[in-house]
Amino acid sequence: MFKTRLTLLGLALVLAAHADEGMWTFDNLPRKKMEAKLGFAPDQAWLDHVRLASLRFPGGSGSFVSADGLVLTNHHVGHNWIQAVSSKDHDYVEQGFVAASREQEIKVPGLVLNTLERMENVTAEVEKAVKAGQTETEAAKARAAAIQELVKARTAAWSLEAQPVVLYQGGETWIYGYRKHEDVRLVMAPEYGVAAFGKDWDNFSWPRHDLDFSLFRVYQDGKPYAPPHFLKWTGGGVAYGDATFVVGHPGRTSRLDTMAQMRFNREVAVPQNLRSLERRRKALHAFAAQSAENARNASAQLMGVENAYKVVANELVGLRNSEAMVEVEALEKDLRAKVAKDPALSALAGQSWTRIEQALDRQKALAKDLAFATARGSQLLNTAVTLVRVVEAESKPADQRTGEYRNERALAQAKARLEAARPVPAANDARQLALGFQEALEELGPKHPFVEAVLAGQPAEKAALALVEGTRIGDAETRKALLAGGPKAVAASADPMLVLARRIEPVLRDLRAQQEEIQALITEHNARIAKARFAVYGKETYPDATFTLRLSYGKVETYPLSGTLAQPFTTFGGLYDRADAWGPKAEDGSWALPKRWQERRAALNPSTPYNFISSNDIIGGNSGSPVVDRKGELIGLAFDGNIESNAGRFYYDPRLNRMLAVDARGIVEALSKVFNAPHLVKELTGR
Amino acid sequence: MFKTRLTLLGLALVLAAHADEGMWTFDNLPRKKMEAKLGFAPDQAWLDHVRLASLRFPGGSGSFVSADGLVLTNHHVGHNWIQAVSSKDHDYVEQGFVAASREQEIKVPGLVLNTLERMENVTAEVEKAVKAGQTETEAAKARAAAIQELVKARTAAWSLEAQPVVLYQGGETWIYGYRKHEDVRLVMAPEYGVAAFGKDWDNFSWPRHDLDFSLFRVYQDGKPYAPPHFLKWTGGGVAYGDATFVVGHPGRTSRLDTMAQMRFNREVAVPQNLRSLERRRKALHAFAAQSAENARNASAQLMGVENAYKVVANELVGLRNSEAMVEVEALEKDLRAKVAKDPALSALAGQSWTRIEQALDRQKALAKDLAFATARGSQLLNTAVTLVRVVEAESKPADQRTGEYRNERALAQAKARLEAARPVPAANDARQLALGFQEALEELGPKHPFVEAVLAGQPAEKAALALVEGTRIGDAETRKALLAGGPKAVAASADPMLVLARRIEPVLRDLRAQQEEIQALITEHNARIAKARFAVYGKETYPDATFTLRLSYGKVETYPLSGTLAQPFTTFGGLYDRADAWGPKAEDGSWALPKRWQERRAALNPSTPYNFISSNDIIGGNSGSPVVDRKGELIGLAFDGNIESNAGRFYYDPRLNRMLAVDARGIVEALSKVFNAPHLVKELTGR
Repeated sequence: MFKTRLTLLGLALVLAAHADEGMWTFDNLPRKKMEAKLGFAPDQAWLDHVRLASLRFPGGSGSFVSADGLVLTNHHVGHNWIQAVSSKDHDYVEQGFVAASREQEIKVPGLVLNTLERMENVTAEVEKAVKAGQTETEAAKARAAAIQELVKARTAAWSLEAQPVVLYQGGETWIYGYRKHEDVRLVMAPEYGVAAFGKDWDNFSWPRHDLDFSLFRVYQDGKPYAPPHFLKWTGGGVAYGDATFVVGHPGRTSRLDTMAQMRFNREVAVPQNLRSLERRRKALHAFAAQSAENARNASAQLMGVENAYKVVANELVGLRNSEAMVEVEALEKDLRAKVAKDPALSALAGQSWTRIEQALDRQKALAKDLAFATARGSQLLNTAVTLVRVVEAESKPADQRTGEYRNERALAQAKARLEAARPVPAANDARQLALGFQEALEELGPKHPFVEAVLAGQPAEKAALALVEGTRIGDAETRKALLAGGPKAVAASADPMLVLARRIEPVLRDLRAQQEEIQALITEHNARIAKARFAVYGKETYPDATFTLRLSYGKVETYPLSGTLAQPFTTFGGLYDRADAWGPKAEDGSWALPKRWQERRAALNPSTPYNFISSNDIIGGNSGSPVVDRKGELIGLAFDGNIESNAGRFYYDPRLNRMLAVDARGIVEALSKVFNAPHLVKELTGR
Repeated sequence: MFKTRLTLLGLALVLAAHADEGMWTFDNLPRKKMEAKLGFAPDQAWLDHVRLASLRFPGGSGSFVSADGLVLTNHHVGHNWIQAVSSKDHDYVEQGFVAASREQEIKVPGLVLNTLERMENVTAEVEKAVKAGQTETEAAKARAAAIQELVKARTAAWSLEAQPVVLYQGGETWIYGYRKHEDVRLVMAPEYGVAAFGKDWDNFSWPRHDLDFSLFRVYQDGKPYAPPHFLKWTGGGVAYGDATFVVGHPGRTSRLDTMAQMRFNREVAVPQNLRSLERRRKALHAFAAQSAENARNASAQLMGVENAYKVVANELVGLRNSEAMVEVEALEKDLRAKVAKDPALSALAGQSWTRIEQALDRQKALAKDLAFATARGSQLLNTAVTLVRVVEAESKPADQRTGEYRNERALAQAKARLEAARPVPAANDARQLALGFQEALEELGPKHPFVEAVLAGQPAEKAALALVEGTRIGDAETRKALLAGGPKAVAASADPMLVLARRIEPVLRDLRAQQEEIQALITEHNARIAKARFAVYGKETYPDATFTLRLSYGKVETYPLSGTLAQPFTTFGGLYDRADAWGPKAEDGSWALPKRWQERRAALNPSTPYNFISSNDIIGGNSGSPVVDRKGELIGLAFDGNIESNAGRFYYDPRLNRMLAVDARGIVEALSKVFNAPHLVKELTGR
């Protein structure tokens, strides 16, 4: 038995070598590693099938799971859309929802899903745009212009939404073409109490008991859409040790960052982010505690903030794990030594690590200003600042503008948004504004020009309230008139929000210019390091996550937890065990089961698998990704990582990093025994 | 909700101040803290009742739970006794056992239980024996002699087994009087597979699902014994947040050690211990893997070694927890500063921390010799060494002897053991001897005098086998003849084990003498520090554990685990969830349920509480302790700590340290629904 025992103490991680690591692009799978680990590597048809059955949600992932355009994703990916179609009388978040027929499916305004249909590597074309002798900033501008042209051309050529994708921190540039699905309807959602059983306490924990799924349907021309590809429901199930593949959109990782960037994150960026989230969390809880209506309105936002807080807190734990960071550093040392030995690579990237470190020293001095001298969070102040910028930009030729409005399309979109009729809600905005002002005061001090401008000597709440009560900027007609009046009208306005925007805009603009210069430096040298890495190791690695489609492979696999091995599955029996253990009232009912779940307990088979863990390498954005077997059939639904996986933004620890998934058998059991939805079971499984 | 959230990162522990800490002696309860925490502090009748209902097992604890002398303890406390009354045909460990009637109860030879009936503080009398100007070694001898006299006197006066108890590292000395129970019979044991569900994987883990209990009965004059006190079974149950009291025998803690001792443990003693356990564990697994018979014979020993390995590995984690150790150090600094300010205390103990540190420097140089130049583990070599020592001691007056045989009674007992007829089994001994020799070779090197003596240039296994095959020392008649022949006969013997014993005995004796001198120094100065601590803080604290009766109080309380809060209870539903999750074959069937448990699943109420956690401060030796409520009624059975509690040898961390207990309701449910033992349910509950 001791041969299989995971060592409790101090084993080296060997972060670099582990087979299961990686969020791979579809053009560059590690076929040899997959063959060695799983005895299987997918062919092109398999890859096309799972890609075309996959969907990108706003902030998450999903997939087509029936011939009639049924879409599977997480409840927490659907949460704010379910909330959006709810009302005081029909709280589909709290109560759940099942459309008994297609007629009952509820249209979700604003929800757009995307299928990735085309991918083209345009690195060579982009690089051609850069001229020898250009500074980093000039090179960055040249690349941006080239990319803008390419996007325009491909959009026209493909009749798809073309988007640029920069991989390997600038080592490669691609254009991806998406098919948009704009008529999406809600089909089914379980109760929040069972979708997020254990609430934010259990978020990222394992063993877990979350029925974290929801069903939507894509319509086209008023009829259910027939997708060319959809995932078949598994005939069998998944067992301990079985291969698992995840297709989805990991949001962001920073694993190819230099050690200087890791240290900057550890010492500056992440702690600062954590402080800010802590403030936001407290403010939201205080708001939600005021009334049931507030609590309902804040529920999705609160879940998001709690989630982010836990992620960021554990990112910091990961960055402070000296054992792991020693290994990360060793990888960098190896590459630097190999670059130093090769004159050509040395000329390309030999100085890049130092240049990045120097840029970060500048960034460090600016970090607080960039984070806290900002209109972030307040829609009204943001609107006012945008208005000042848009009229200013419109009065200049494109190449003399700063920031994003060098791009004509971006300028036009910004103007259109300003002209749109949707009113800006004031009550919520006063809270956000007060929070931002107070935060700026605490972080920057009362003498900072931004703080002096926004507070004008008053307490944050009072200053915010005066601005919100005094402004007419929330009114579309007012905005239209100001836009029509141009720079003169904006300069002459006595609207207090606009007065403030005029005052802070130069501060923000200056900060942004400095930030752009620093960022261009970092981007350029990260790209050079990426090219050097290709030259040294070949394209053996995967790019950092960019919220674009990736494939991750692994298997159902345990990890050391609380002195033992984590159980690979949980069951419905475990769900009730947890509910019984806590009772319905502990921690504000975090483990209270919805009434229907109490009533139908006896109908459920307690042994049915409910959630499982696997070694797949995923991160936020992968939520809602389908988990498929080697036949490409659906066996589960990715919904989370374990708490240890939060270090995954910076490195993958094969000993501890695990994906959490809802078992497909659990979804069917619940649809059939609790939700009385045989029509959905039949659509999914054919049975 | 955020108000009740346990902070994820970096809160100070405040180790010293927490209300639940402590393994309290019955004369010195922290009544004010108990009142503040629980609104309850027990009166004298309550204390007498639970004390007199409690039992000390060899290495563990237990209690009387019926008027007919029924005894409740852990399965793992009873394990080797259950194994001892098993045979190839009746494996009561594997299969479990239920006596359907009193006639079927199985007498357990050698098992003796003790009730603590009297306690007397004799500190003043012992201290009188020490004369001014004595060295630490002389003082230690004087105290030992005085204690020996007191034990003799109390044994006679009380008609009880009197035993000395040194508390507060020498700050107090007591004599405890025990009533011995020598006719103990096995009544009931669950199958090992459910008593230790999850085997050594789950040992110390939480959530846990162990039916870790067994039932014995004390007999007197061939009839069930009627104890004057026994614990009533609870009428109600225990709920989250309820007060819990544990009465039992914590084995050993080192919390009052100086920082120098903590560092010695961290750098030297504990790592050395861990290396040794790792070797023993590997050797035992290899042995058990050879046959089913071996596996059965090694089962209790293997469980013990695995348990010890996990404990010691996590002791090291605790000692390396810099956050906690900073707080431990702060407590020492505070005391040292207060001692330094008081001239009398300064004269008493001002130098003691330094003296201990110096003694440990000497100990460090000897540590490997003391641990590995030893006959430990081999019964035959031990017998030979004892024989050499006994005849040597018998030939001298008591005050010229070294070691424990200065005590006449100890000498007589050693001689009696040598003369006893029980043969020493050779096969097991060759393994142990080879293991010890190999370990000595690895740790001390081939040139060490001890290694040269035992190996004589041969590989460890060969040397061990030659000794075991050549010796007659396992034979009682041979030993009796040698004892009768005295020093001359022993010196003349050509028995290879005796030849070796003669050769190594001087080495061992010299080591022991040095060790005694060092230990006397440490003991003396630990005692001085203890006296200084009394003078500064009063008797506000509890003594380190000494495997004597203590009371610990706390409540059913969660702790942060794996990103969430640990559930306070598990249920039978959770047991089956875990079994379903792993299946019967994973990790050599560690989570395989016995057949009877598979068959009777439907009969059990899945919601019945099974195990629970509480903040009670316990440690190894507490196993089998009853958990009672404020009425003194039995609500559970302590069987383990969580993995974090392994640091408890050195400090109590209120955030993480938790006791694990079997819920009394779980025991009754299992007896009634699985074991078909209504007679035992009735005897326990009256229902």
